[in-house]
Amino acid sequence: MIYITRRERFNAAHKLFREDWSDEQNLETFGKCSNPNWHGHNYELFVTVKGEVNPETGFVIDLKALKNIICTQVTNKLDHRNVNLDVDFMKGKMASTEVLAIEIFKQLKPHIEQHGAALHKILLRETENNYVEYYGE
Amino acid sequence: MIYITRRERFNAAHKLFREDWSDEQNLETFGKCSNPNWHGHNYELFVTVKGEVNPETGFVIDLKALKNIICTQVTNKLDHRNVNLDVDFMKGKMASTEVLAIEIFKQLKPHIEQHGAALHKILLRETENNYVEYYGE
Amino acid sequence: MIYITRRERFNAAHKLFREDWSDEQNLETFGKCSNPNWHGHNYELFVTVKGEVNPETGFVIDLKALKNIICTQVTNKLDHRNVNLDVDFMKGKMASTEVLAIEIFKQLKPHIEQHGAALHKILLRETENNYVEYYGE
Amino acid sequence: MIYITRRERFNAAHKLFREDWSDEQNLETFGKCSNPNWHGHNYELFVTVKGEVNPETGFVIDLKALKNIICTQVTNKLDHRNVNLDVDFMKGKMASTEVLAIEIFKQLKPHIEQHGAALHKILLRETENNYVEYYGE
Amino acid sequence: MIYITRRERFNAAHKLFREDWSDEQNLETFGKCSNPNWHGHNYELFVTVKGEVNPETGFVIDLKALKNIICTQVTNKLDHRNVNLDVDFMKGKMASTEVLAIEIFKQLKPHIEQHGAALHKILLRETENNYVEYYGE
Amino acid sequence: MIYITRRERFNAAHKLFREDWSDEQNLETFGKCSNPNWHGHNYELFVTVKGEVNPETGFVIDLKALKNIICTQVTNKLDHRNVNLDVDFMKGKMASTEVLAIEIFKQLKPHIEQHGAALHKILLRETENNYVEYYGE
Repeated sequence: MIYITRRERFNAAHKLFREDWSDEQNLETFGKCSNPNWHGHNYELFVTVKGEVNPETGFVIDLKALKNIICTQVTNKLDHRNVNLDVDFMKGKMASTEVLAIEIFKQLKPHIEQHGAALHKILLRETENNYVEYYGE
Repeated sequence: MIYITRRERFNAAHKLFREDWSDEQNLETFGKCSNPNWHGHNYELFVTVKGEVNPETGFVIDLKALKNIICTQVTNKLDHRNVNLDVDFMKGKMASTEVLAIEIFKQLKPHIEQHGAALHKILLRETENNYVEYYGE
Repeated sequence: MIYITRRERFNAAHKLFREDWSDEQNLETFGKCSNPNWHGHNYELFVTVKGEVNPETGFVIDLKALKNIICTQVTNKLDHRNVNLDVDFMKGKMASTEVLAIEIFKQLKPHIEQHGAALHKILLRETENNYVEYYGE
Repeated sequence: MIYITRRERFNAAHKLFREDWSDEQNLETFGKCSNPNWHGHNYELFVTVKGEVNPETGFVIDLKALKNIICTQVTNKLDHRNVNLDVDFMKGKMASTEVLAIEIFKQLKPHIEQHGAALHKILLRETENNYVEYYGE
Repeated sequence: MIYITRRERFNAAHKLFREDWSDEQNLETFGKCSNPNWHGHNYELFVTVKGEVNPETGFVIDLKALKNIICTQVTNKLDHRNVNLDVDFMKGKMASTEVLAIEIFKQLKPHIEQHGAALHKILLRETENNYVEYYGE
Repeated sequence: MIYITRRERFNAAHKLFREDWSDEQNLETFGKCSNPNWHGHNYELFVTVKGEVNPETGFVIDLKALKNIICTQVTNKLDHRNVNLDVDFMKGKMASTEVLAIEIFKQLKPHIEQHGAALHKILLRETENNYVEYYGE
């Protein structure tokens, strides 16, 4: 069993707020992350896949295929977009790094399994000082 | 003469577009950077100050003072904000990295000169793949 | 279950030596790290917390609260200090990266648990070429 | 139990291809990585060792000894070399990052165990966008 | 006048040697960089362009156009290639970082000038510990 | 004319203080940097040399020779040392980054000129957020 990780990036706007809360409540809980006019990040996404090494190719998974899955299913939908408003799989969800990582995991899992490998982990870095990891359970 | 550089960071939303252009014209010129619902970045700002070394302290400028100027005049206004909508010194201007660097330079210059040093350069990094430098002329 | 990591930094002096050993013995075991007049590092501390996502906020733990715990309990005591001489929780202990990581874990664990989350891991980076990880057992 | 990681680097040439395949087959499977005249990388190797902390030294393993093992057994054989042609432990094997990580693990394991510690993981980074991890099973 | 920099990357094999020298002479001058079977690097190329800001767009140069020039004229020719054998503009030249930077400058200059901007500098990083800068004269 | 830069690193302790000042005066001017028991940093030193490219070798200067000069004259004296107490060329001087950069420049200049090249710049990085540049005048 070996683990291979591919990094992709996307630049997106978001905010943390609940429509069913007052502005004061949002500000108290989410601080400057609740700025009504949005803010944004250069997100880094690390997708870790595990599997056996194919003895013929030396690969767990073809990285071009993995990159293609990540871009088609996830980063093309997020890059230069608004996480709260523009992304189908985030509709009606909190745009926190935690929730975004979980939803990205769900998007990728079936497509990676179709390539005979298993999705092990999503690591989503929001800034140089914080990131989230999700293993699917 | 010696040069000292302080890095500060801010996370902001922006978009590239002209209100006097159609959506098609904006899309053609600015591509995905014109996404109507904004996108965003983790900006890195490097402020380079030059001057003589004070023989008593060994300093060109007290870095705590420099950090304080940068935060008060620039990054507090930009961090977790929308460059197009929320920032007084960017009102009515294109929110490109180039223009933002020039306007940051103008904000900082008089305050740094009050500390007996000269503002040499602004370097503003938008992503790991592109940045802008401005020397004030 | 999701994992969130916060990075904080501190710049500190230390040395590796045993008072009950001769200078020669210290030099032989610890090499240049035993320099009597100290040396120092820009340490990077990564604190990983795990827990369930709060469905109301999308958070495992409020990062401002986590940052506050780390600074109050750990980095304020270490930053611009001497690990061997100035830090209450390191008194009488070897100032190796391993021991420092273990003691930081002990400092943080009860305070993070008071916020309803669990401390998963401490990663302490001493240089770009070496770091230590501790999971509490 | 604590984990300590040492990073070493090596700059090497390689290509992905099978001699028993035609050029077309190699190109189809391995893309530009099959360029007949080779290409190359600045590889980063992270070796993670686990063990108990020695109460006398505060060490899991002496990092100078660990560095010495890594250089003697692995990086001296790979640095400024061709992975396919020049490296004894890669003869007859696919020069993929996956296979290279597994073979490096095998090279290091007995030598680290002679120092009373256990080899936990090899992380081998080929580019800023992809890396492989291997735990020995 | 403002300066904008675009980073692109390429992974290539090369060696430092002179065909008119003996192996011993090559080894003495170029050390392990003269390994007959090549070695390689993840090169980072930073292209700095200068010009006036276009008041309509806020741009010095469209970064998509700049990226396109760099890829077409330079990195597509170098990526996953052998600098000594595969690259038209390096034929018969020493494959040192210095010479490569100079030749890349020559390749890019006329194409950037066709976009109404000036090529200011090439910075070519070979490893994390060394890089070369060339200003065209 | 081309510029080549070599990075070397050293880990050192220091403090900012004047013996002819009271502790209060030192604290007021230098803040936590005046901690009596020292603190420390992982310094990064970038040495930029300029010259013509030797047409025979493709080199401005042999990087092994440059590395050797930097280590012998500078980093061996600073690494795992106390800048205030252990370094001959810093005796009686303020251990600020500015002064250290200037003194490093003076140490290196004659030795680099003996190799037929010119010392262009010293860049000394103290933390990820601040660095100093000195051009010799």
